[in-house]
Amino acid sequence: MSDIHSARVDAIRRMMAENGWDAVVISGSDPHGSEYPAPRWKQVEWVSGFTGEAGDMVITQDHAGLWTDSRYFIQALEQLDGSGIELHRTRIPGAVGLPDWVAAHADVVAVDGRSQSIGYVNEIREALFRAQFDPDRDRHCRIVDVPDMLDRVWEDRPWFPVTPVETLDEREVGESRHSKILRLRKFLMAEGKDAILLSALDDIAWTLNVRGSDIEYNPLVISYLLVTRDDVIWYVKKDSEDIPDADTVDSFAELQADGVEIKSYDDLSVDAAGWDELFSVFVDGKTLNYSTYMMLVDMLDEAGVYVGCSPVPLYKAVKNAVEIECLKDAYLEDGAAVEQFLYWLETRVASGESVTEWEASQKLTGFRARIPGYRGNSFENISAYGPNAALPHYSTPVEGSAVIEPHGLYLTDSGGQYIFGTTDITRTVPMGECTPLEKEDYTLVLKGMIALAMAVFPEGTAGCQLDVLARNALWRSKRNFGHGTGHGVGFYLCVHEGPQDIRQNFNAQPLLPGMVTSDEPGIYREGLHGVRHENILLCRKAGNNEFGRWLGFETLTCCHIDTSAIVPSLMTEDEMTWLNRYNSSVYTRLAPVLPSGIAEWLRRKTCPVDLP
Amino acid sequence: MSDIHSARVDAIRRMMAENGWDAVVISGSDPHGSEYPAPRWKQVEWVSGFTGEAGDMVITQDHAGLWTDSRYFIQALEQLDGSGIELHRTRIPGAVGLPDWVAAHADVVAVDGRSQSIGYVNEIREALFRAQFDPDRDRHCRIVDVPDMLDRVWEDRPWFPVTPVETLDEREVGESRHSKILRLRKFLMAEGKDAILLSALDDIAWTLNVRGSDIEYNPLVISYLLVTRDDVIWYVKKDSEDIPDADTVDSFAELQADGVEIKSYDDLSVDAAGWDELFSVFVDGKTLNYSTYMMLVDMLDEAGVYVGCSPVPLYKAVKNAVEIECLKDAYLEDGAAVEQFLYWLETRVASGESVTEWEASQKLTGFRARIPGYRGNSFENISAYGPNAALPHYSTPVEGSAVIEPHGLYLTDSGGQYIFGTTDITRTVPMGECTPLEKEDYTLVLKGMIALAMAVFPEGTAGCQLDVLARNALWRSKRNFGHGTGHGVGFYLCVHEGPQDIRQNFNAQPLLPGMVTSDEPGIYREGLHGVRHENILLCRKAGNNEFGRWLGFETLTCCHIDTSAIVPSLMTEDEMTWLNRYNSSVYTRLAPVLPSGIAEWLRRKTCPVDLP
Repeated sequence: MSDIHSARVDAIRRMMAENGWDAVVISGSDPHGSEYPAPRWKQVEWVSGFTGEAGDMVITQDHAGLWTDSRYFIQALEQLDGSGIELHRTRIPGAVGLPDWVAAHADVVAVDGRSQSIGYVNEIREALFRAQFDPDRDRHCRIVDVPDMLDRVWEDRPWFPVTPVETLDEREVGESRHSKILRLRKFLMAEGKDAILLSALDDIAWTLNVRGSDIEYNPLVISYLLVTRDDVIWYVKKDSEDIPDADTVDSFAELQADGVEIKSYDDLSVDAAGWDELFSVFVDGKTLNYSTYMMLVDMLDEAGVYVGCSPVPLYKAVKNAVEIECLKDAYLEDGAAVEQFLYWLETRVASGESVTEWEASQKLTGFRARIPGYRGNSFENISAYGPNAALPHYSTPVEGSAVIEPHGLYLTDSGGQYIFGTTDITRTVPMGECTPLEKEDYTLVLKGMIALAMAVFPEGTAGCQLDVLARNALWRSKRNFGHGTGHGVGFYLCVHEGPQDIRQNFNAQPLLPGMVTSDEPGIYREGLHGVRHENILLCRKAGNNEFGRWLGFETLTCCHIDTSAIVPSLMTEDEMTWLNRYNSSVYTRLAPVLPSGIAEWLRRKTCPVDLP
Repeated sequence: MSDIHSARVDAIRRMMAENGWDAVVISGSDPHGSEYPAPRWKQVEWVSGFTGEAGDMVITQDHAGLWTDSRYFIQALEQLDGSGIELHRTRIPGAVGLPDWVAAHADVVAVDGRSQSIGYVNEIREALFRAQFDPDRDRHCRIVDVPDMLDRVWEDRPWFPVTPVETLDEREVGESRHSKILRLRKFLMAEGKDAILLSALDDIAWTLNVRGSDIEYNPLVISYLLVTRDDVIWYVKKDSEDIPDADTVDSFAELQADGVEIKSYDDLSVDAAGWDELFSVFVDGKTLNYSTYMMLVDMLDEAGVYVGCSPVPLYKAVKNAVEIECLKDAYLEDGAAVEQFLYWLETRVASGESVTEWEASQKLTGFRARIPGYRGNSFENISAYGPNAALPHYSTPVEGSAVIEPHGLYLTDSGGQYIFGTTDITRTVPMGECTPLEKEDYTLVLKGMIALAMAVFPEGTAGCQLDVLARNALWRSKRNFGHGTGHGVGFYLCVHEGPQDIRQNFNAQPLLPGMVTSDEPGIYREGLHGVRHENILLCRKAGNNEFGRWLGFETLTCCHIDTSAIVPSLMTEDEMTWLNRYNSSVYTRLAPVLPSGIAEWLRRKTCPVDLP
């Protein structure tokens, strides 16, 4: 494997020499800043063999380096072994970030601006600018933008993904595309701009009520959407290079009937060339790529291109009544699938049959796939037994995954994409006898999950102001977890969405009624075990009084929490009451839809636990 | 009273007419942004009669207005009655702030830049700048800075306060002024500046280890301190206009022996005129007044005057070992005084004798005053019975204050300045039978105070990330309080100091070992009652482990919490254990220093309470 990657690095170095570039920066997203880029944009993986989600590379004539954070140190060392590519650890004391490193080692830096954000390239630009003040060297630093740079060396590089486009009806999503476009036009009026260019693929899918499968796990269509005060133009790959399939033809016809003009993905630059010089366009600084941004600046100068935050994430985060009703169904169906899986797992393992993590993962997907409206998983299943669960981002290997034994803790974090919602759930399952430490960790994490679920808070409260509720039980025992507590969840869209979250970072976005956010504290002990409990919470109004307007959460997830590993003496009465009520309500809702044997098993699993 | 104030407004209007000013802005601090200005700078009070801590005025030829927030609406309406001065409510929906109002109504605006911060005057300047773009009017707006403007109309205006200066020994404060100045010089090196001008009076008192009593409640000396890489110059009023007293002479001699040059307060501008044009000075944007800032800019231009945050608040907030030991003594002595007061109050009221809020307040001060090293109160005592306690900033009237009855809740919030520390404590005292709502509120607020006191948290945690712990019990019952949970407390300095706090605002300053912060949740029900429990917490290391480096709190306050109003069924086992241990430790520590009758009473008051 390492020979392949060395050869690829060498090919890039030849390209650098031919073009007079001192360094090449390769980083990891698609032209729309997507969380899961399609294979075409897995550039770091192609060059280095490293498959972690976060990693950027710099290649010079005498160095090749990969920058990644502590989540991926072990994986990177394994995957880079023998390739000659060195690991640069980020977010550790004394770490030199990629921008500063490249500025110290290269004058002419080539980037693929089409797969890098404005902010990312600007960081490199600023580091190069600072480097020019080196009193000991006369330097003339610059960035060269080479869109799709790797095309020149990556012979069988995958082409743009082209998958069918489906439309969703107002009855399915609760708001017409007409109404959503009207919201964007009001936004334009308020901002005093002529147009907004949406570049985030889920912003576009939400606005147009369209879905596709260009990207793994995210039901999205690679495209740009321009909304002006008069026009709506969707720049999309489907209609040019490839003959669109029947679904797409129908979808396009429906959109055109609604006043959406459909143009080729590459026509954006053609159209921009014709814009009046006084035309002003609002762009999304988080997801617009650097090359397209520079193209717009060339056409309109900087004054005409306003870089801000797209308003769509906030529109999208607040689910409407139809979406909420659908989500409740989705979590019911999804919960029933997970319960069937848990029953299967417990029965198989208890009977002494061998089950590997990979088999369990496949089985779980199988139960989900039977649900009408299932469109795939919402992310890669995590199926991890024992010490493997101590890696929060464990990727279950197809071959040679661990056998799940009849003791200790098994962790599964998974979700489905359904035409009526996106789900995400983590259950940590005691497979038999557990150690006292496993039980304590299981209980303390559960206390955190419950404390957040029970929270009541005044309007205006942001997730970071609640985060400690999910950590306090762990903190008081000097335990912690190194990830956020909660992320927004889309409606048949991305499983991770903003703008709200629940974590330590100061994100000022208040939680609003209709927002759907995960509640997933955990704990990870290297070489021993991992625990994470995850339910999905719907923010709801909780009444007004003299002290203000109150909000709280309704738990959407409908799947029991195993009580066998709980240490009752660590629980408060409130927490135990919440847990018993939750489990009882799961049984009541799911028993009617489960096979009777499984329903009876669930009845036993959800028997109330007493405080000691 | 209103005649006086109308006459004063008229005098100001004549001054405006003579000088061609359209408006005058009068606001409420001294030249150093102090929380409690000396009488000389109680300008808003002199003009309007309004005594609230937060209030600014604008006077034009046909309008006089006072801007204040909801804490002071009722008080302002009463105090402004008949004066012709109108109340402008701030922080309410649709409120027009003072800067925008004055910009809409005046072109030439006179300010007293000597008693206003840089930021405050700049806000007015920016509002005036925006107002000039009014398409319907041709405007030429400007600010006129008239230092000490009211001198012209305020005949018997109090002069600069001049009080004795005392020095504190390294053994009393744990760090020499030499060492503190060294820290400032390291800061200058890191910032690449030639000098730092300290303007916050507590920054100066801390750095020089000096105290005075120029300001009520704050043991400070009105002055500036300039620290350059070579010199230390203290610009202070004492040595010029008045013959200094013996203490001051000794103090000055000690400072001079330590290399501190002492100059007249007004010499700062004289010296600044002689500075090299390449001289660069770091100034504190929060507390330097506008006139002095502009004077420096005139001398050095803007490039030479760097407006930033003084580093001293952070140095000062982290108490050293000597300060911590002294503070423990201070809280022990102070607690004993408060216990004597509580015993006296309970006994007097129970015996049927009439006690007013004012008498109680005086009595409490009396017990504190007996402590050797007592130098006054650290703020105005709050002594409030029944519905009066529902005003978080209740000011007990000297005449006609309420009689404390043998039922319901009495609230006292008070503190002392001792040469060995500054204290702050609030106790809510059940005077007899309490209503169920009083008991519930009492208990829920106490749960919040205890939850914060018990917190354990990783290094790097800021107060705003813990604040919800003090609110969660209230929030879950849809109750809340409208003030911060905790403020920093000085060491024989200001009772309110930064940079840390514990509140909802996103203040990123982490809590550090050695920081001293209050823990004071509350609840306020208009017309009924108020509850606040306040202990002072010392942040301490709590050990390191695989999950990180941990911090926690030690409670410094040593005064029992009355258990008679607690609803035990609302408390968790943890909370009850904390409370019983706390009360027991208060008894153990205070019994030896209290008269035996009071010790016996305290033993009964601190008997453990059982969970139901």
